[in-house]
Amino acid sequence: MATTRPQKSYIDGPASGIRNADDIPWIPFPGIEGSHFKLLRLDRETDGGIFLLKIQPGVRGPMHKHFGSVEYFHLKGTLKFGKVLLGPGSYAYELGGFKHSEDPPETEETITLFISHGPLQAYLPDGSPGKVLGASAMAKLQERYLLEQATSAPASEA
Amino acid sequence: MATTRPQKSYIDGPASGIRNADDIPWIPFPGIEGSHFKLLRLDRETDGGIFLLKIQPGVRGPMHKHFGSVEYFHLKGTLKFGKVLLGPGSYAYELGGFKHSEDPPETEETITLFISHGPLQAYLPDGSPGKVLGASAMAKLQERYLLEQATSAPASEA
Amino acid sequence: MATTRPQKSYIDGPASGIRNADDIPWIPFPGIEGSHFKLLRLDRETDGGIFLLKIQPGVRGPMHKHFGSVEYFHLKGTLKFGKVLLGPGSYAYELGGFKHSEDPPETEETITLFISHGPLQAYLPDGSPGKVLGASAMAKLQERYLLEQATSAPASEA
Amino acid sequence: MATTRPQKSYIDGPASGIRNADDIPWIPFPGIEGSHFKLLRLDRETDGGIFLLKIQPGVRGPMHKHFGSVEYFHLKGTLKFGKVLLGPGSYAYELGGFKHSEDPPETEETITLFISHGPLQAYLPDGSPGKVLGASAMAKLQERYLLEQATSAPASEA
Repeated sequence: MATTRPQKSYIDGPASGIRNADDIPWIPFPGIEGSHFKLLRLDRETDGGIFLLKIQPGVRGPMHKHFGSVEYFHLKGTLKFGKVLLGPGSYAYELGGFKHSEDPPETEETITLFISHGPLQAYLPDGSPGKVLGASAMAKLQERYLLEQATSAPASEA
Repeated sequence: MATTRPQKSYIDGPASGIRNADDIPWIPFPGIEGSHFKLLRLDRETDGGIFLLKIQPGVRGPMHKHFGSVEYFHLKGTLKFGKVLLGPGSYAYELGGFKHSEDPPETEETITLFISHGPLQAYLPDGSPGKVLGASAMAKLQERYLLEQATSAPASEA
Repeated sequence: MATTRPQKSYIDGPASGIRNADDIPWIPFPGIEGSHFKLLRLDRETDGGIFLLKIQPGVRGPMHKHFGSVEYFHLKGTLKFGKVLLGPGSYAYELGGFKHSEDPPETEETITLFISHGPLQAYLPDGSPGKVLGASAMAKLQERYLLEQATSAPASEA
Repeated sequence: MATTRPQKSYIDGPASGIRNADDIPWIPFPGIEGSHFKLLRLDRETDGGIFLLKIQPGVRGPMHKHFGSVEYFHLKGTLKFGKVLLGPGSYAYELGGFKHSEDPPETEETITLFISHGPLQAYLPDGSPGKVLGASAMAKLQERYLLEQATSAPASEA
């Protein structure tokens, strides 16, 4: 039974450290069934961060706009970016302020490494602005998910 | 009558250039009577920027939260920052995510140089989230204001 | 024979765009035989950038110090980071100012995605400071290498 | 006699805090007689920071190059920036990689607020590269100067 405070599952700010993606479970992305993330680092200076995003085939994300820029390094599967198909090894830089939604992956799940430089604005189906989501909100979701897993799985700790 | 496209009133992104604050009029800050800004640079990477903010005595800003960090270098008058009084030459660094409103200046207008690393979330009087405002929105307001001034003042161009 | 100016092989600053790592050959890293890079983006704000680095087994890099921070997302092989072994999916954040050299990969080449926030200082074998290398210097090396390839391979253009 | 560890004279990284320029003495800039600085914040992510720089009339700085970008908000006196004269309220953004030296102020000392996004390379009179100076080095100089002042001035503590 641990009594020491465990380190956070992600790196918080400019602090040297290492995190292994394999040690973090896929965290359900809020409001998008079939989409999961693993946050590796939170950059509080911009409310951005670096995280993995996995999208199941057929899952279309909601309309959204990044306030700042976003960088993508694609790792698995193929993903449409505008008219271009991103495959493993593709890198994309997207300037902020562009309202869009991604086409769903067709046949295979996709995994992408994201480097975000700020929060995003989600839009409701009627086009009105919904929630604003930054990496600090993802950090809270991830810690809460891990805590719930830990407390709801007594047998695994025995 | 100018036919060439004038440069923007602010520096857009990482491009060498100079702007003189004296050449930019005070732009009304949206939704806060008695508060004005002059945007000097827009950083599209974060939707942040560097701008001057002038607040008249007695003006209380709305509740808001910066998603990223904000830096203040205070130039004129005194401004409360938490329990501390900022005067000319005071520098403050504020981590993002902190919901607050500033006390109004008591007797003298204040001028502060702001360096923001992302947009802010304004809150309505009932506590619900209102508009999200980043430096790209301030840039549009500033350009529109200057354009309106230019087109509504024919005599000054004669 | 192309007469239009081709786009740069990397993304320059905050401009939307896509680059495929497969379209860029491995560029010899200056001064380190057995080490190669592919620059994906140059960030002139910090002289940092995002690039892939490949290291052959047995190759030890020189002593160096990053002035700013560096982020690593490891893609292939294993690499020692201090006392920890990084494998595919490992993410490391290294604060700047730390003088070190990496142990060579033992049996398999390694590929790592680097996000650097500034230049590095290399040291000579006697410990004195050598060259300072930032992403803008890597950008020039990459463009020059591609130009040399294009001009020295007439048959491939036929 | 204080036994608690005092806070640093500058803000270190993304930590909320306030520093008053009046509380920091002017620190001699290394290698440039007649030039002084006050570091307000160190940004370890880039080895940049925010600091005030004061230059006496007639003082010419050495040739140097900023690896990253630098922002200037001019506060006092006039300073030539290329062919342009910066006065109080002038803001300049300078992309990195540009080798230059500033003309000395003619008749009045100048004070400028600098926001640097990385270290600079100084050059020796013969044109060869000299020291590389980042905000982390300025931070050490400032702390050492303050410590020397504190230990060499016993009477002022009585």
